[in-house]
Amino acid sequence: MRALILVALAITPLFAQIPQPVDPVTAVRRVLEAQQEAWNRRDLEGFMSGYWNSPDLTFFSGARETAGWQGALDRYRNNYQLGGKEMGRLEFRNLKIESLGNDAAFVRGSWHLTVSDGKTPHGLFTLIFRKFSDGWKIVHDHTAEN
Amino acid sequence: MRALILVALAITPLFAQIPQPVDPVTAVRRVLEAQQEAWNRRDLEGFMSGYWNSPDLTFFSGARETAGWQGALDRYRNNYQLGGKEMGRLEFRNLKIESLGNDAAFVRGSWHLTVSDGKTPHGLFTLIFRKFSDGWKIVHDHTAEN
Repeated sequence: MRALILVALAITPLFAQIPQPVDPVTAVRRVLEAQQEAWNRRDLEGFMSGYWNSPDLTFFSGARETAGWQGALDRYRNNYQLGGKEMGRLEFRNLKIESLGNDAAFVRGSWHLTVSDGKTPHGLFTLIFRKFSDGWKIVHDHTAEN
Repeated sequence: MRALILVALAITPLFAQIPQPVDPVTAVRRVLEAQQEAWNRRDLEGFMSGYWNSPDLTFFSGARETAGWQGALDRYRNNYQLGGKEMGRLEFRNLKIESLGNDAAFVRGSWHLTVSDGKTPHGLFTLIFRKFSDGWKIVHDHTAEN
């Protein structure tokens, strides 16, 4: 009996470390929150960890189609970092996260940047998320800038 | 025995009418083909039958968000029919249809119009499809015009 109690005490911390399962909507919301926080500390690689790291990631921005995770990172670098460009303060608004089964979801929302010159670039976006072994990731991003 | 054969002959046409189940990608492709054909015979209501007939349908077009099936129909009418406007000849290209489980899918592609004044409006789009009792329908459309 004492041995059983000792075993129970020994394995309890292991179980305590197992993360609680979260529903798709909560999981996707956390990814978007983490992306927003990463952007606002100028951590573009952290921001990009919300995207599927694959050449098959697709990114539609207005007329342009960008292929692959690296292409998306390069696009963000070119538009928001290189040549003294400013990342600004990012805010996602009006998020509507809808589960599509257990391992997919899509998001409608808008992005708003606050930059120091007083301009407020913003636009609508649609995201497709899929669940991978390392978490929920954006596999397709269709973003518009007003 | 002869009675059994007669029964079999009698019910065979019933079974022949039961549609074969199709995979999500094929089902979605057929909806898009039917939309293209409807557009090209100036049948806007037929085109709209590919969309979820609900106030919860959403349509992002550039900076604008249109809500509901009726809103989407009105938008098409305003942009392509009223005031002598032209629907032109519609072609979907580069369709990538990806299943997201048994009852959802998303589509990446581009639309191309050929109109009589020589202009060729075109753009990228992202569609979310869900399967309903009356078939696969677009529940969200994010379309860009170049």
